[in-house]
Amino acid sequence: MAESSKTKKRRRLEPDSTADEHKLPFKNRLKPDSSILETLRLLAASASSSSSSKPKTLADLSLSSTCREVTDLSLPSIQSAIETLVLSVTHSILSGKGFSFDVPSRAATNQLYVPELDRIVLKDKNTLRPFANISSVRKTTITAKILSLIHQLCLKNIHVTKRDLFYTDVKLFQDQTQSDAVLDDVSCMLGCTRSSLNVVASEKGVVVGRLIFSDNGDMIDCTKMGMGGKAIPPNIDRVGDMQSDALFILLVEKDAAYMRLAEDRFYNRFPCIIVTAKGQPDVATRLFLRKMKMELKLPVLALVDSDPYGLKILSVYGCGSKNMSYDSANLTTPDIKWLGVRPSDLDKYKIPEQCRLPMTEQDIKTGKDLLEEDFVKKNPGWVEELTLMVKTKHKAEIQALSTFGFQYLSEVYLPLKLQQEDWL
Amino acid sequence: MAESSKTKKRRRLEPDSTADEHKLPFKNRLKPDSSILETLRLLAASASSSSSSKPKTLADLSLSSTCREVTDLSLPSIQSAIETLVLSVTHSILSGKGFSFDVPSRAATNQLYVPELDRIVLKDKNTLRPFANISSVRKTTITAKILSLIHQLCLKNIHVTKRDLFYTDVKLFQDQTQSDAVLDDVSCMLGCTRSSLNVVASEKGVVVGRLIFSDNGDMIDCTKMGMGGKAIPPNIDRVGDMQSDALFILLVEKDAAYMRLAEDRFYNRFPCIIVTAKGQPDVATRLFLRKMKMELKLPVLALVDSDPYGLKILSVYGCGSKNMSYDSANLTTPDIKWLGVRPSDLDKYKIPEQCRLPMTEQDIKTGKDLLEEDFVKKNPGWVEELTLMVKTKHKAEIQALSTFGFQYLSEVYLPLKLQQEDWL
Repeated sequence: MAESSKTKKRRRLEPDSTADEHKLPFKNRLKPDSSILETLRLLAASASSSSSSKPKTLADLSLSSTCREVTDLSLPSIQSAIETLVLSVTHSILSGKGFSFDVPSRAATNQLYVPELDRIVLKDKNTLRPFANISSVRKTTITAKILSLIHQLCLKNIHVTKRDLFYTDVKLFQDQTQSDAVLDDVSCMLGCTRSSLNVVASEKGVVVGRLIFSDNGDMIDCTKMGMGGKAIPPNIDRVGDMQSDALFILLVEKDAAYMRLAEDRFYNRFPCIIVTAKGQPDVATRLFLRKMKMELKLPVLALVDSDPYGLKILSVYGCGSKNMSYDSANLTTPDIKWLGVRPSDLDKYKIPEQCRLPMTEQDIKTGKDLLEEDFVKKNPGWVEELTLMVKTKHKAEIQALSTFGFQYLSEVYLPLKLQQEDWL
Repeated sequence: MAESSKTKKRRRLEPDSTADEHKLPFKNRLKPDSSILETLRLLAASASSSSSSKPKTLADLSLSSTCREVTDLSLPSIQSAIETLVLSVTHSILSGKGFSFDVPSRAATNQLYVPELDRIVLKDKNTLRPFANISSVRKTTITAKILSLIHQLCLKNIHVTKRDLFYTDVKLFQDQTQSDAVLDDVSCMLGCTRSSLNVVASEKGVVVGRLIFSDNGDMIDCTKMGMGGKAIPPNIDRVGDMQSDALFILLVEKDAAYMRLAEDRFYNRFPCIIVTAKGQPDVATRLFLRKMKMELKLPVLALVDSDPYGLKILSVYGCGSKNMSYDSANLTTPDIKWLGVRPSDLDKYKIPEQCRLPMTEQDIKTGKDLLEEDFVKKNPGWVEELTLMVKTKHKAEIQALSTFGFQYLSEVYLPLKLQQEDWL
C-alpha cells in the first residue's frame, strides 16, 4: 500500500515542480549560454587590455615623498636591512646616546585614500620609540626581539605564524596583540611586506575552477579538486606558474554560496575561477586574488551579501584595510566589480519580504559611515545602491536566493547577471 | 662598511646557532629515522589487525531495543520514508484525529556513554509533538517544512547547507538555530545520518600527506598539495577510493602546527597523513577522519593543546559530541591515541614557565568536569594527565614548543614521541 501511494504522490509532484519553474523570477529572460559567453569574452578582453597599462604608483602622482609603501624584499635584503639597523643602534649606544627606533606611524590620522590609486596608503609621519623612556621601553624591547626573530627566519628560510612568534617569549609579549602590532611596525620600518618576513596568517580561503598553479613545487589543477576545492596556500611566495582559460574570477563572500557553485561546477558552464575567504578576507586570500588578477589579467566580479559588511568586504579586497594600509599596493586587487547581491536586486528579483532582514542600528551606522568613505563616493553606482540600502533599512544574504530553490543562484541569478552585464 | 660588518656579524652568529642546538632538550636522544620507522611499522600492523575485528554494535550488547542509532540511507530510501510518514499523517488528519510527530528526544537525560563502544549513544525516549497544541504548533510546522525540503533535495540529488535551508522560509524559522535543531530531529525520526539528508556543514578541515582519494570524481594526491593542503570536502558521500602508504594518521588541533608540519613535509620523513579541523572538529572532518581510519586501518595519533579543550576536542573525534549522539556510530573514530602535548610533557620537555599559561577558573572547572566523564575515566593514563593539569593549574598550546625554535615540533618533539611510543 505504501508503494502504490508513493507512485501516486510522485505523479502529483511532477506538475508542481514544473509550475515551480514558471514561478522563478526571470528564468524566461535567460538567453542561450553561447550568447552569455560572448558577453564574458568581451569583458575579459577589455580587462586584459586595461590591466596591461601599468598601474599608477605613488611616484607617478609625486606622492613618494609624503607617502610610504612597502615592497616584497628577498630574505637576504631583509637580513641585511636588519643588520644595518642593529649596527646603527649599536653605534648609538656605544657613543653614549642610548637608542631609539624610528617607527612609521600607522594611526588613522596618518592614512590617506588616494583616488587615483583607488586604495588607502600610509603617509610619512614617524614616531620615535626610545629605549630610555618608561612609556616606551617595553615596546622598544619587543621591537628588538621581533627584529631578532625575523633575522632567524631569514637564516632558516622557513615560514611561521604570528602565534609562533608570540610563543617565543610569552613573558615579554604578554599577549599576542602586542607582538602582532610590532610585527606590522617592523614591516613598515624595513619597508617590506609582511609576507616577505616569512610570517604567515592562517589560511581560510579556498579556490576551485579553471586555474592551474604551483604550490610549493606541486602543480595544482583546480578543475580537479572535487567539491572541497584547494586550500589557498598561506605563503604566496611559493605560489606560481598560474595558467587559466577562465573568462573571469568570481569572488564569493560566503562558503555556502561557494559550495553551491562548486557542486554545480558553475565554472564549466561559464569558464571562471571561484574563490572565497569564507567571510572576512584574510591576507593569504587577498594576496592570492591579487596575484591571479595581475598574472591572468581577468576581470573580478564579486558576489557578497546585500548588507554594509558585504560592501566593506569588497572594499577590503579592492582598496585595502586601514590596519595594513602600508602594504595596500601588494594586498589590493584593482577594479573589482560589484556583481551582487545588491540592494536594488531585492526588489528586482522579487526577494520575498520574509527573506529580507531588518538592519540593526549598528548596520545603519556602518552603512552611513561607508557612504562617507572616499572609495565608495568614487563610484556613483555604489553610492546609489548603498543609499537605497540605508533608506529601505533592509539587508539580505546571498542565501536569500534559496527561497526560489537551492539552485536559483547558479541556474538563474548569476547567468542573468552575466548576460545583462549587471555589475557596478 | 655595512657589508663588512654584516660578514662579521654572520661569523659571530654561527657558533651561537650551534650552541642553540645543544640547548634543545632531548635532541641528542633521537635515534636514526630508520629505527623510529620500525616502531611505526609495528604500530601500523597492530592497528590494522585490531581494526579488522568487526567493531561492536548496539545489537552485540543487546542495547538495540533501549538505544537508537541512525545509519547512512540512500536518497530513495529517505524519500520513501518521508512519503510513508506524510501518508500516515494524512490518514490521521482525514480520520479526524489531527496529527503529531513522534520525535526522539535528544536531551542530555536521554544520552548514554557505552564503555564497550567507547562512545555516546542516544536512548530510546520519544517526545510527542502535536500540531493541535499551542506550545508545539510552530515546531510541528517547522518539522513538516523541513521534511518537505529534504524531500526536494532527494528528488534533485544536490547538497545544501543549513543556512540554505533556513533561507527557504525565514518567516517560519525565525532564526537558524530553530531550523538546525529540527534538522537533527528529522535525522533521528527518519533514522538516517545528517549527511544522508544531503545537508552539509561548512568545511574547515584540510588534509596533506600520504593519501590519495577521489572527491566528486576527481583523483586527489595529497602529497602534491603544496603547503596549503587539500580542503576536506563537505560531502563525504562523494569521497572514495582511498589509498595510502602512510604508517599513521596525525590529527592536529590547530592550523599553526599543521602549517609547520606541512611546510617541513613531515609526512615524507615519517610516512603519515596530517589532518586538522583548525580548532573545533566539524562534521566533515570527523566523517573524513573516520573514513580514513576505517578504510586504511591506520592508527590515529592526536596532537592537541595541553588544556581541557584539547582533550575535549580529542574526545569529540573519539566518542562524539552530545549534540549529535544519535549519529555517534558514523561520526566517531575509535581508538585515537593522545600523543601530545600532554600535561606531563611540560616538565619533561622543560617548557619554560613563561610559555605555560595559568588556567582560568573556567578552565579548571572544565578539567574537573572532564574527570567525571566516562570516556576519560576509562583511560587511566588520561585521568593521570588530566589530574596533573588540574593540580598544577597550568596549560600550554602546541605552539609553546616554538620556544626552542620554530622547527622543534617537527624535528625533535614529534620524532622523539614516536621513537618512545609515547602515546596514551
